[in-house]
Amino acid sequence: MPTLRLALCQVNPTVGDIAGNADLVRRWTRKAADAGAQLALFPELMLTGYPVEDLVFRRSFVAASRAALERLAADLAADGLGELPVMVGYLDADGPPQVSADAVPGRGARNAAALLHQGGIVATYFKHHLPNYGVFDEDRYFVPGDMLTVARIGGVDVALTICEDLWQAGGPFAVARQAGVGLVLNINGSPYELNKDDVRLPLVRRRAAEAGATIAYVNMVGAQDELVYDGDSMIVSAEGALLARAPQFVEHLLVHDVELPPAKEQVDHAEELADGMRIVRAKVSDILPPAATGGMAAGGIIEPVADEAEVWQALVLGLRDYVNKNRFPSVVLGLSGGIDSAVSATIAVDALGPDRVAGVSLPSQHSSEHSRADAEDLAKRTGLNYRIEPIQPMVDTFLANMSLSGVTVENLQARVRGVILMALSNQEGHLVLTTGNKSELAVGYSTLYGDSVGGYNPIKDVWKTLVWRLAKWRNADAERRGETPPIPESSIGKPPSAELSPGQMDSDTLPAYDVLDPILIGYVDGDLGREGLIESGHDPAVVDKVLRMVDTAEYKRRQSAPGTKISIKAFGRDRRLPITNRWREHG
Amino acid sequence: MPTLRLALCQVNPTVGDIAGNADLVRRWTRKAADAGAQLALFPELMLTGYPVEDLVFRRSFVAASRAALERLAADLAADGLGELPVMVGYLDADGPPQVSADAVPGRGARNAAALLHQGGIVATYFKHHLPNYGVFDEDRYFVPGDMLTVARIGGVDVALTICEDLWQAGGPFAVARQAGVGLVLNINGSPYELNKDDVRLPLVRRRAAEAGATIAYVNMVGAQDELVYDGDSMIVSAEGALLARAPQFVEHLLVHDVELPPAKEQVDHAEELADGMRIVRAKVSDILPPAATGGMAAGGIIEPVADEAEVWQALVLGLRDYVNKNRFPSVVLGLSGGIDSAVSATIAVDALGPDRVAGVSLPSQHSSEHSRADAEDLAKRTGLNYRIEPIQPMVDTFLANMSLSGVTVENLQARVRGVILMALSNQEGHLVLTTGNKSELAVGYSTLYGDSVGGYNPIKDVWKTLVWRLAKWRNADAERRGETPPIPESSIGKPPSAELSPGQMDSDTLPAYDVLDPILIGYVDGDLGREGLIESGHDPAVVDKVLRMVDTAEYKRRQSAPGTKISIKAFGRDRRLPITNRWREHG
Repeated sequence: MPTLRLALCQVNPTVGDIAGNADLVRRWTRKAADAGAQLALFPELMLTGYPVEDLVFRRSFVAASRAALERLAADLAADGLGELPVMVGYLDADGPPQVSADAVPGRGARNAAALLHQGGIVATYFKHHLPNYGVFDEDRYFVPGDMLTVARIGGVDVALTICEDLWQAGGPFAVARQAGVGLVLNINGSPYELNKDDVRLPLVRRRAAEAGATIAYVNMVGAQDELVYDGDSMIVSAEGALLARAPQFVEHLLVHDVELPPAKEQVDHAEELADGMRIVRAKVSDILPPAATGGMAAGGIIEPVADEAEVWQALVLGLRDYVNKNRFPSVVLGLSGGIDSAVSATIAVDALGPDRVAGVSLPSQHSSEHSRADAEDLAKRTGLNYRIEPIQPMVDTFLANMSLSGVTVENLQARVRGVILMALSNQEGHLVLTTGNKSELAVGYSTLYGDSVGGYNPIKDVWKTLVWRLAKWRNADAERRGETPPIPESSIGKPPSAELSPGQMDSDTLPAYDVLDPILIGYVDGDLGREGLIESGHDPAVVDKVLRMVDTAEYKRRQSAPGTKISIKAFGRDRRLPITNRWREHG
Repeated sequence: MPTLRLALCQVNPTVGDIAGNADLVRRWTRKAADAGAQLALFPELMLTGYPVEDLVFRRSFVAASRAALERLAADLAADGLGELPVMVGYLDADGPPQVSADAVPGRGARNAAALLHQGGIVATYFKHHLPNYGVFDEDRYFVPGDMLTVARIGGVDVALTICEDLWQAGGPFAVARQAGVGLVLNINGSPYELNKDDVRLPLVRRRAAEAGATIAYVNMVGAQDELVYDGDSMIVSAEGALLARAPQFVEHLLVHDVELPPAKEQVDHAEELADGMRIVRAKVSDILPPAATGGMAAGGIIEPVADEAEVWQALVLGLRDYVNKNRFPSVVLGLSGGIDSAVSATIAVDALGPDRVAGVSLPSQHSSEHSRADAEDLAKRTGLNYRIEPIQPMVDTFLANMSLSGVTVENLQARVRGVILMALSNQEGHLVLTTGNKSELAVGYSTLYGDSVGGYNPIKDVWKTLVWRLAKWRNADAERRGETPPIPESSIGKPPSAELSPGQMDSDTLPAYDVLDPILIGYVDGDLGREGLIESGHDPAVVDKVLRMVDTAEYKRRQSAPGTKISIKAFGRDRRLPITNRWREHG
């Protein structure tokens, strides 16, 4: 049996940075070659980053992607890496955008992959299954491919596929079986979701069985706006055995030798038709770089981590890439002494280091002594830059010049805080972080243009009960490593309060979070209606109260900052609901 | 030749108000019957409103739509209207949502139409062509229909179709010809775009020729968030003659007698196959209500109006429906004396009446005397509720308590204004209007959480040069009617200034708007790249400057309020661009 040494390059491209992404391919192809690889794989839309959204409609952008691909092939050869076949995702156009006589805008772009070898493009493949659900809009952007590309590499027939091709039955993997391939390459830009890693392996196994072939699955790592790509690249044999698996949330070179069946004798240029897809065969080379190093290369199998650790890493990576890829020097956030700002600050320190995090205590006359002390304690534990900006003088001037009362005065305090944080942002260049958790956002328990001020929200997609779990996990993890737990115990233990009026508690307005969150999870994440929630055992009166709050808060949520997505129904791209809408689930 | 009296009911449903929408159908069916109609048509997704976005995924919502349809059929019969066939759009489900073994969420809903008669549902049709471009995401929501429904009504064979079925060649209209129908009904939720009315008539004519049949096209009127439906319902003969056309932007009952070819003899239950679609025939009734009134009914043909008049009506309707459908009692906005706030205030007064509009002058030490005078003059001319809230005391308190300088102080003034407007909103219940024009928004010439504060922006999709044209048109239109022109001439004539620092002018920062706008229109609306803009004759240095501003302003735009869409590339649902993005067109 032929053996191929595969290098799965789990790297972190940046959307729009075509030149930088091409450089990344050159650097990692060098690493792969140094490890004796005979075939290297890079993620989906590697050259453009993913998702590129409406940039697809700019012809100059598509042209730049194609030009960069050709230059990359030449550069790899000039680097002395031309003998190593490299599969890389890029954006292509199938001729000019289709112009319809009927004024329906045409889609002309292709989510494409190329095989580069000896300075040229020796094979291309266009993604066949286009996802158009959840965060995906690919029917908006791409024309589906209708051919399966099979390349003969080192005596093995290898099929090229992209991401969603793996998630749907039929199509390329079924055709791969008919084409008799030994290996299917699948390159991905597959965003993280809580528990998605548990779904991936069974799915890859199912597809390996469908194709009757080994599968090399490489996924992007890094974050793009609300999406985090978690890597989790893997190789699974035709029989379903997990041969190698990369860690999540870090760049990684997974090098592994796989034994593969030799290709059958076939006419080189044959074009066959199967399941409505053409099979297009390309001969790459039987002469590959030798798998130099003695013995077999084994990539190893990373064990999955606990949910809290996984979510924490996702949130840290999400914030770090948002800040760095947008070139913000630092972040600033308000520290109330409460759990949300404490967890957000700790995520920021883990992502950027304490020197790039400014924490501001913004006390008012309603701020308790323990709040101020807890904020200061957090600053000491994490080492972030701490300062105090009292809000009372500004609040008092507004109150002296206008006739304000009740909830208006509560909101006013939150808004003065927002103005101060934005002034610090303008003056010093920080990105402002807003720190409302998903439960708060869902029920609208926040002040528009007040605590919602900020360009990014690290815990936007984290239910309040999970915020607490994350805090406890992070402290325990620090203790396990002999470090100071970053989050003050009293921030974790005390009852939540917005501290905008005397003695105010969240529980004055909201059900207890361990009652609230399961209802929200059913309604928001699960699209359950009122009856379904009541059937699940929730109190009808509480259900009605919660649903009323959620239904009327959509307007506020529309104006909230992006934040790392970890669930299947994050607020943002996932959930598209009309603002003007009279449909009410609550009784 | 048989004659049918058609009633095209161009009405204004509300998203989610299923009971209210059903009542609307009952009231307008009564009107249609009183006018002697023999067939009445209501818009696409009449019962739910359009678009319903992710409400489609809530089973309780789909079930409510289906139940409402059945009840409506019974209610119409109980109203004594059972003999009049009524075509109405509704949301249906084709069994439970498809659950795929591959974890790909299934789409289970149908964009459906029903023909109601004698208390029952006598025919249904599922939309075949699903739009998935621009503001449309229908591949996300719906399963396409694969049958054409033909109903025999009063001796005429009538095909049912929905919206996009008309915009694409092939499919239902081609099949309608093979089915030999005399009339095609096409019900719409077709959003307004500048000049779209010029596209519609040629399109309906093309489709009439394709089907070889008369087309009755009824469109929704009213607004939903950023979309405005303009009506413009019409009837076009098989030969392409425009027989009747309704006005834009108002509810209207278009009643018209059309002569139609008699149906050919055919087996009632025949199922034929054409172009991959089944033809399903239903016999409704040959006994219809008599077209009672003597002589022929003629709906008349409304002539198109000038672009400025059309846009103005769109903006007025967009704001009115946003405010009323969301049940805001009133709006508040800052009046600077400039053109943007003057035009926005006038739109608000036209939409809601002067009693529901509060205008606030928010002078600072940099506000010129003419600014204050112009704001007051506008208030007098329009009759809106006017007040003055000086911002200097609050600005001074911030400056006394923090070390702020430069642009931070400029932004601070805008943010204090935002806090004041939001306090008035909280205290008095107004919706805050923000009034940045599309040119400003495009280049980011605004203060995040400052002048961008507000829940709705009437001129969000209006280029600055069009703002001036609208102002001049509105004043001239008032003069033509012998009314006081609402907008002070000096607001129109003076050079634009943000008045945030001494002597500041827009032209210090931006190219002249008559230079800026054509570049923005090419880049934003036309997706032209740098080279394309330069080829169009624009100065490369100016192009680079403008593109740099647009590319870096996406982040601010993401946090801006919804506003009425009038162009093909409004900021909002139309344009989906990554925030984190290193792609730059500028040199």
